[in-house]
Amino acid sequence: MIARDECGRVSFGRWDYLVQALIVLSLITFALETIPGLSQFHRKLLSYFEFFTVVIFSIEYLLRVILCRPSKSYAFSFFGIVDLVAILPFYISSGVDLRTVRAFRLLRLFRLLKLARYSSAMQRYHRAFMIAREELVLFGFTALIMFYLAAAGIYHFEHIVQPEIFSSVFHSFWWAIATLTTVGYGDIYPITVGGKIFTFFILMIGLGFVAVPTGLFASALSRARDEEKSESSK
Amino acid sequence: MIARDECGRVSFGRWDYLVQALIVLSLITFALETIPGLSQFHRKLLSYFEFFTVVIFSIEYLLRVILCRPSKSYAFSFFGIVDLVAILPFYISSGVDLRTVRAFRLLRLFRLLKLARYSSAMQRYHRAFMIAREELVLFGFTALIMFYLAAAGIYHFEHIVQPEIFSSVFHSFWWAIATLTTVGYGDIYPITVGGKIFTFFILMIGLGFVAVPTGLFASALSRARDEEKSESSK
Amino acid sequence: MIARDECGRVSFGRWDYLVQALIVLSLITFALETIPGLSQFHRKLLSYFEFFTVVIFSIEYLLRVILCRPSKSYAFSFFGIVDLVAILPFYISSGVDLRTVRAFRLLRLFRLLKLARYSSAMQRYHRAFMIAREELVLFGFTALIMFYLAAAGIYHFEHIVQPEIFSSVFHSFWWAIATLTTVGYGDIYPITVGGKIFTFFILMIGLGFVAVPTGLFASALSRARDEEKSESSK
Amino acid sequence: MIARDECGRVSFGRWDYLVQALIVLSLITFALETIPGLSQFHRKLLSYFEFFTVVIFSIEYLLRVILCRPSKSYAFSFFGIVDLVAILPFYISSGVDLRTVRAFRLLRLFRLLKLARYSSAMQRYHRAFMIAREELVLFGFTALIMFYLAAAGIYHFEHIVQPEIFSSVFHSFWWAIATLTTVGYGDIYPITVGGKIFTFFILMIGLGFVAVPTGLFASALSRARDEEKSESSK
Repeated sequence: MIARDECGRVSFGRWDYLVQALIVLSLITFALETIPGLSQFHRKLLSYFEFFTVVIFSIEYLLRVILCRPSKSYAFSFFGIVDLVAILPFYISSGVDLRTVRAFRLLRLFRLLKLARYSSAMQRYHRAFMIAREELVLFGFTALIMFYLAAAGIYHFEHIVQPEIFSSVFHSFWWAIATLTTVGYGDIYPITVGGKIFTFFILMIGLGFVAVPTGLFASALSRARDEEKSESSK
Repeated sequence: MIARDECGRVSFGRWDYLVQALIVLSLITFALETIPGLSQFHRKLLSYFEFFTVVIFSIEYLLRVILCRPSKSYAFSFFGIVDLVAILPFYISSGVDLRTVRAFRLLRLFRLLKLARYSSAMQRYHRAFMIAREELVLFGFTALIMFYLAAAGIYHFEHIVQPEIFSSVFHSFWWAIATLTTVGYGDIYPITVGGKIFTFFILMIGLGFVAVPTGLFASALSRARDEEKSESSK
Repeated sequence: MIARDECGRVSFGRWDYLVQALIVLSLITFALETIPGLSQFHRKLLSYFEFFTVVIFSIEYLLRVILCRPSKSYAFSFFGIVDLVAILPFYISSGVDLRTVRAFRLLRLFRLLKLARYSSAMQRYHRAFMIAREELVLFGFTALIMFYLAAAGIYHFEHIVQPEIFSSVFHSFWWAIATLTTVGYGDIYPITVGGKIFTFFILMIGLGFVAVPTGLFASALSRARDEEKSESSK
Repeated sequence: MIARDECGRVSFGRWDYLVQALIVLSLITFALETIPGLSQFHRKLLSYFEFFTVVIFSIEYLLRVILCRPSKSYAFSFFGIVDLVAILPFYISSGVDLRTVRAFRLLRLFRLLKLARYSSAMQRYHRAFMIAREELVLFGFTALIMFYLAAAGIYHFEHIVQPEIFSSVFHSFWWAIATLTTVGYGDIYPITVGGKIFTFFILMIGLGFVAVPTGLFASALSRARDEEKSESSK
């Protein structure tokens, strides 16, 4: 059972700034480790820093577990689990085979969520999401249908001429993503006249549908701000 | 004569959820069938499922035809025709030559419209479209003129240097679509100085025009929501 | 001296619909003529239609010149000049060398402006443009500075590594256009680390600046609608 | 200590127009100088014009330093420093080795900021930025996290298949920039199924986050306009 309390947000004063800085640094070192051709010395430095980070995070985790009342409420709260997942990869990966380490290391990205506790932007995003939740699901689903329709349609037009690129509706889905978000990498595009005309119509109709959830979220965000202000002025 | 009544929206209680799930599954299997190199076993499984789906949809269709009053009103309503078109391809395609089957199979995509009956998002889109109908036609037409102007202009600049790519105003239209929607696949772009300067101006002017219909639809959608709320609160 | 009166908007009843249809058809034939490998027969058909179109437009022009009071006011009005320019290329091109004909033919695109007389969308665009004129010039100029800054910056980063592609600030300007409008054809992009970081910052700052004029025009358009409504309700 | 006064905005009447025109011309010549294969004659012409420009700017700078009261307040103000930086490269570069000249020349771009003194658009941007400062930093930071998450995620999916292109999280960051801003050059894109599905989700979530700061700035800009109007009507 996941308890829902505010304990994970208990502040330790200046300690908080240290933890936040450590999270950011830890994310940067995660990126640095992936640079190919790092010297043995730099690798060592990065692993020492990772060790230091995990120690601090572990202390923070234990302190929160011990200090929080009612007891165990933190350990089973959202942020309690996030904090655990953020340090677990280190302890597990040292005991297992090297191959599976890579996937575990990715879990360190959950430290981003640790930042959310301190970030007021995140809290507003959360509030905005709760306001527009139903509509986002509704219109997100409609956008999904638009993607499906685009993929199934272009497959019909392009499959015979470009069997390697539009080899199934799922491959065409990749085209639909790149096109309706207007990214347009250029790795996949229609070459038949029918496919191009279809693209025109699907873009004219689809751009509006795909843009709707973004617009909904933006307006929910401004409503969230107004709510926050009226709450803080009370 | 197409009768306009609410009969197609008659609810059969829990049956509705089954039908919705079947529609979604049926669309997924439509996509699965297109994967190249499927085994005989999987092909069989998918065709069995398609058979099962059509049986259920046929029963639903017949029930609606029989139960709806005034009689025949459903059969000639919008959703009555959609429901028929969604199952027809199966019955027709089993009697005809294999070559024409492909085009008929595409009609199965009309099942997406069947979903619209259940989706409140679709109903709001419909309402928003009715609110902004006139303006959408007006400004959609203006956007079309913008596309035409862009195509005719770039043809003039690029035709001589890239006769293969900008071989007619219609080919240039494809460039106008990819450029003014900012997709930019990269299969067709100006290389002359004149063409590039023209692209700059057409983008500066055109982006606003193409974005207008999207903005109109978005604001119509929020008006549709307000109308819905004031209606439901009555 | 260009007189400013409403005479060009005099309606000839049903004749108007014929003229509008002719303009659209004439624009389509303009596009059809560019298709490579047209048969002699089709070319002839298109030129006959062009001849017919010009005759009708000439009659319309003469009628307006004769009927409009005060006399000559139409001939020197905006739409009077547009109407003349729309038919002139035909008369001039038959007398001159074939080489220069191409450029003159492009003037036929001015017939698009003839459509503006009949289109209420165009009139609203014009009104919106007048409302936001000053701001559009102001912020359009700022966007231009943004483009310049982007071009000059990326030239500094990429010139040495890609001297062929980023060969001058003007060539880099083409990159700035494709990037800040998010078209991204892929014919020109940074490959140095510095250039990529610069692109990141210029995108973060620039996207907002380039989007501002579009937003200004959209809000002016909605104000223009309100004005129109309050005028027509008087 | 940087003094904050309005002295840098002292107007010299018609002189102002000359200075503005010179700034714009000076920026154009900066671009012209980069054209490859300029003749000796044109190079000379451009350098003469640059010399002339710097003389005028130097006179303007000295006049402002002398005339402004309290004395020295201009020299240490924001625009005082901008004016100095805009002419300094000329004096310094004539004394140093040719290699380092290039970097100094780039400082001439600061003349763009000189324009800001005269531009009311710039003043409104500044005001809008001050209004939304806190929120822009907050949500700009969130957008940055989104970029990081996208880069780290795609690296995991694509690194093994495309080790040359997605060679580190930093290289993947370049992909995140091109994708989440929807530029999509096409030099870097996922080819694995996992990477494509990840791209779909990160686009669905990320587009909203990246668009938020732009929207914030746009609404701050309209608030800045209202403030300006209410101030000028007092």
